[in-house]
Amino acid sequence: MSLSLSELAPANIRAIAPYQGGKPISELAREMGLNEADIVKLASNENPLGMSPKAQMALEEAIYEIARYPDGNSFALRDAVSRKYGVQSAQIVFGNGSNDILELAARAFLTAGDEAIYSQHAFAVYPLVTQAVGATGVVVPAVEFAHDLPGFLKAITPKTKLIFVANPNNPTGTLINKTDLKTFLQQVPKHVLVVLDEAYDEYLSSVDKSEAIAWLTEFENLIISRTFSKAYGLAGLRVGFGLMHATLADLMNRVRQPFNVNSLAQVAATVSLQDEDFVARSYAANQAGMAQITQGLEQLGLSYIPSYGNFVSFKVTNASAVNQALLKSGVIVRPVANYEMPDYLRVSIGLFGENARFLEVLENILKS
Amino acid sequence: MSLSLSELAPANIRAIAPYQGGKPISELAREMGLNEADIVKLASNENPLGMSPKAQMALEEAIYEIARYPDGNSFALRDAVSRKYGVQSAQIVFGNGSNDILELAARAFLTAGDEAIYSQHAFAVYPLVTQAVGATGVVVPAVEFAHDLPGFLKAITPKTKLIFVANPNNPTGTLINKTDLKTFLQQVPKHVLVVLDEAYDEYLSSVDKSEAIAWLTEFENLIISRTFSKAYGLAGLRVGFGLMHATLADLMNRVRQPFNVNSLAQVAATVSLQDEDFVARSYAANQAGMAQITQGLEQLGLSYIPSYGNFVSFKVTNASAVNQALLKSGVIVRPVANYEMPDYLRVSIGLFGENARFLEVLENILKS
Repeated sequence: MSLSLSELAPANIRAIAPYQGGKPISELAREMGLNEADIVKLASNENPLGMSPKAQMALEEAIYEIARYPDGNSFALRDAVSRKYGVQSAQIVFGNGSNDILELAARAFLTAGDEAIYSQHAFAVYPLVTQAVGATGVVVPAVEFAHDLPGFLKAITPKTKLIFVANPNNPTGTLINKTDLKTFLQQVPKHVLVVLDEAYDEYLSSVDKSEAIAWLTEFENLIISRTFSKAYGLAGLRVGFGLMHATLADLMNRVRQPFNVNSLAQVAATVSLQDEDFVARSYAANQAGMAQITQGLEQLGLSYIPSYGNFVSFKVTNASAVNQALLKSGVIVRPVANYEMPDYLRVSIGLFGENARFLEVLENILKS
Repeated sequence: MSLSLSELAPANIRAIAPYQGGKPISELAREMGLNEADIVKLASNENPLGMSPKAQMALEEAIYEIARYPDGNSFALRDAVSRKYGVQSAQIVFGNGSNDILELAARAFLTAGDEAIYSQHAFAVYPLVTQAVGATGVVVPAVEFAHDLPGFLKAITPKTKLIFVANPNNPTGTLINKTDLKTFLQQVPKHVLVVLDEAYDEYLSSVDKSEAIAWLTEFENLIISRTFSKAYGLAGLRVGFGLMHATLADLMNRVRQPFNVNSLAQVAATVSLQDEDFVARSYAANQAGMAQITQGLEQLGLSYIPSYGNFVSFKVTNASAVNQALLKSGVIVRPVANYEMPDYLRVSIGLFGENARFLEVLENILKS
């Protein structure tokens, strides 16, 4: 038997189309011959305010200690998360970003033959981690871009092992209200795990903010995923965490790489968690920027999907061509054709000047 | 059917015993009520010189940019590795430490029913990543603590998909000579992948240093793993890489998390790769420290396994009790009972004063 080199990987691996991230500023500068300083990146739902100044100060000291391996148990960060969210230390799993949490859930619980359910237009990492372990993804059609939770329940079969729910969802920005979500959790069979991805929770108003952590005692099959990459402004450092029943955490920790969270991420996240003032400022800046951008889109006669995140997806004729024109002008947004939204572009909420630049360039493109 | 919560994970996951890393200084300080400054950690094969001063300077600037996601393609680092090692960009896979490279190889190529071969006393991550994907680990007994390559060849079956070879091996420090290694590669069937883990290559003399990268054109089934955690002194930041045929790299990149290598790791590794002077100093310090420690062990009448790494495993009566006594005195070394070496302790080569402190404390323990 002679195998080609690529056939050394099983079919499910060969079929994976890797995740397409936002284009880095440095990459666009190289491609278009632009100065990095002239580029506005509103493509990756990053925090335009940067990170907590307290985290920055902590990093300034911590960089001298990186010849040592990280604390594989993230002792200080674990203690900080435990206190802030009122959970036991053993209920926390740390990840190299919350991407890692999503993947650990798939790797710990899904095997070939199992089914994982997620919504149409949901975050691209759910199908990726499902496919990578050889499980079958089951896509529930969205209703007006939002998760159809009754549809999720109907999609459950004896093979269903795990359900991914994004709240708010990226790239649509849609939110499930708390009553509907709790009713859903009550109806999901106890042997089916629900991974509730709350990467954007810090951008919700106090009224909308998740109460799911308080539900952990009631729902032993619930896994809540959080990240420091969004409102905390630590995307470059890679740190997120999952909260769940200690038994599930123990299982996920068995497939976790022992030093998956680097030392500097642990330091910055620990300090950031205590800087509530910075998160409040980030929330306020996002509210103002969201108003600025949605009003601007309305003035341009463009429709958009009302968003609860730090981004908004808007509809535009020839989205791909508009995206290319934006890139040529040094403005990076995110095409979402791979989310079955070929007529939409997603723009992250930036600083006032960045938002204004985006709207101005977009206006010029639409006029021309 | 009523499942217990733990039964939601398959049996291979439930059976995993997580990796035991070296005890962090902060943890020992808490446990023993010691001052961190009084503790000597020689437990994780870290570089006692720290990191390249040039990398340090680069980090001092880079920490202000971490609200942005990392470059998922590691453009600058990829370019630096490509130039330094004379490989194509497409032949490189970056990892969150080389642990990630080992895991990506398992996840891309191994499935349930496949066999992976590795040596007795070999690095603990090989069985872990094999078990996590539900494949079967096949252990080849070591010969005088070293890899038995003829034994590896005999262990190959139709189910064999992957072979892990550590060179030098941790925790034994043994080295396979180049002729034997090349002969082995010539005899391994082309559809069996060989992951050659060279984490400690920078600690080899110019005579012993690996030539495997030059062999990549000849052996399409060869995957070479390297790390920045050892001689480059970047363990806390998490970055390593694999070199291989572009087809294999493409497959491994399909299961790689899009932002697995954080921004600061990319910056520090890129700069470190060019600081050959720092690596040369690290090599020289290790040579001197190895002589100091092995001479000290000999004076104490202790036998040790001659090592090609930045660590040495020595034999001692009641290794577990000696380890506890060392900890009480603030000296952290690594017990290796989980490597089927219950009579041994592994000590990393530190600075002159650290090595002297270790030897002095050990002498006092053995006398008492």
